[in-house]
Amino acid sequence: MSGEDALIAKYFKPLATHPAARNLIDDAAVLATTGDDLVITADAIVEGVHFLKGDPPDTIARKALRVNLSDIAAKGASPTGFVLTLALREVREDFLAPFSKAIGEDIAAFNCPLLGGDTVSTPGPLMISVTAFGHLSKGKAVSREGARAGDIVFVSGSIGDAALGLDVLQGRLSLGPKHQTFLIDRYRVPQPRLSLAAAVCEHATAAMDVSDGLVGDLAKLCAASRMSARMMVEHVPLSDAARAALMDRATDWARILSGGDDYEILCTVPENRAESFTAAAEAAKVPVSRIGIVTEGGQVPAFIGADGQAMSFKSASYSHF
Amino acid sequence: MSGEDALIAKYFKPLATHPAARNLIDDAAVLATTGDDLVITADAIVEGVHFLKGDPPDTIARKALRVNLSDIAAKGASPTGFVLTLALREVREDFLAPFSKAIGEDIAAFNCPLLGGDTVSTPGPLMISVTAFGHLSKGKAVSREGARAGDIVFVSGSIGDAALGLDVLQGRLSLGPKHQTFLIDRYRVPQPRLSLAAAVCEHATAAMDVSDGLVGDLAKLCAASRMSARMMVEHVPLSDAARAALMDRATDWARILSGGDDYEILCTVPENRAESFTAAAEAAKVPVSRIGIVTEGGQVPAFIGADGQAMSFKSASYSHF
Repeated sequence: MSGEDALIAKYFKPLATHPAARNLIDDAAVLATTGDDLVITADAIVEGVHFLKGDPPDTIARKALRVNLSDIAAKGASPTGFVLTLALREVREDFLAPFSKAIGEDIAAFNCPLLGGDTVSTPGPLMISVTAFGHLSKGKAVSREGARAGDIVFVSGSIGDAALGLDVLQGRLSLGPKHQTFLIDRYRVPQPRLSLAAAVCEHATAAMDVSDGLVGDLAKLCAASRMSARMMVEHVPLSDAARAALMDRATDWARILSGGDDYEILCTVPENRAESFTAAAEAAKVPVSRIGIVTEGGQVPAFIGADGQAMSFKSASYSHF
Repeated sequence: MSGEDALIAKYFKPLATHPAARNLIDDAAVLATTGDDLVITADAIVEGVHFLKGDPPDTIARKALRVNLSDIAAKGASPTGFVLTLALREVREDFLAPFSKAIGEDIAAFNCPLLGGDTVSTPGPLMISVTAFGHLSKGKAVSREGARAGDIVFVSGSIGDAALGLDVLQGRLSLGPKHQTFLIDRYRVPQPRLSLAAAVCEHATAAMDVSDGLVGDLAKLCAASRMSARMMVEHVPLSDAARAALMDRATDWARILSGGDDYEILCTVPENRAESFTAAAEAAKVPVSRIGIVTEGGQVPAFIGADGQAMSFKSASYSHF
């Protein structure tokens, strides 16, 4: 058995218990379909870009999978499975053992089986490329295009934590240890809002996940819907840690609103369904906040501060290039 | 619009005309399913590992997609589509223009639409990670496990060319210019045998594509089927260029049989269907050769040379680790 096959057999075959995975000894997975729609999303993470060299292997594993599950949730779908492509500099037990253990735990936690993948060597940084699949009834996937004037803009969880966590890790932000730990964890381990997916599917006119910053991602949603929005910055949900950083003037709203890596769900819901959506979110145990309203017109959404003035942002969102 | 969105809009959105791709402005593709089985395969290629730094961008594009289509063909399926994840050091028109043009040509040539993907920056080598999908009737995917004693072992095309092409590019092999050009092209641009897929689906008991070398890949197929095989090395199909290299003693059988990157289909066919399979392959205009027979027992397959003796190989196949 080659080193590559041995690696797969040792670390990943035990995780691939779904029949579609064919024990990872075939060239391909074979997934039975049912006539439902299949949501397909691909997101890669690169060492030094999406995670830091010193990040623990288990958090790298979770982030690689979860950034994809976040997209599945934002379309209103349930996880079907995923394929995992690993580009490694070397085979290290102290990386692969905790990495594969964490993948296995997330497979169970999110009911999202490993279907296949590829393992290649690279002289460069560690890179994990995931393609994830979700399913939902035909025609039910929520797009970015359906927002209508008057719809309420909702966001799940809290915004800005991951960007602040990165700031802590890179020495740009200093807070008490409890807040720092919380923010670092938010950077390293996204929480895909899969339990909110059914409510999004039922009530939202448009949805996406916030990965590149709220300001830029809302602009994309509005552009796709040919709408604008009026956002109340004071209503953007903050964690205690982010609020503390803001009160200390250790960060600012621009960083919170456009830092990215939030992996929360941003969606628009017709005003007359907003209460039902809130109730469904509560039942799903995912906090959601009303942060604005969709408006007519093609302008970039306005973020209104406590002083009633629209804020302006230098860089609306993270871009790789 | 960010640099990343501009890149996608310029180079890839024009290629993503399939409705499932949602114009590449959503978080995910949404593919309608029909109840057929969906074959899913993921293969990544890395600069300096699977292709060389100086390789032309169009050949890099074709190789990235085609190594995946080769897996789809080997399962007996037809292409459904693919997602493309690109890790780039920088945005260069002189790379992205020919790269995306070639992807567009292969999308048309193989009727395999672009459904989505991801574009990320990397400080390391260029890497292209593809997940490709194929479809076929429920339960019809050909596995590696079905080979039975007495089945004929077939392989498509010719074996060894790509490894010899790499040898030419790296200065280890010198031949006439016509042969060199042919071998380099075989290394850079695999020919996925999709037109053979229906014949494989109808007749083969087991199949896979030869990517890591015939010796090692046949051993994998036999192991999965709990069988062995007796191979006639003289029957292994060679190109004129590979034959010339062998006659010149500029290479050897070990390199040809275990060098890898062939992307030909290796399959086993019951003796009483061998003629029908050959006829179907001929109708599909894909050359196939009988190269051996499946035998009982769990031993590594024997490769019998012209002298009637079994050959031995130091390294049966390419392994990344």
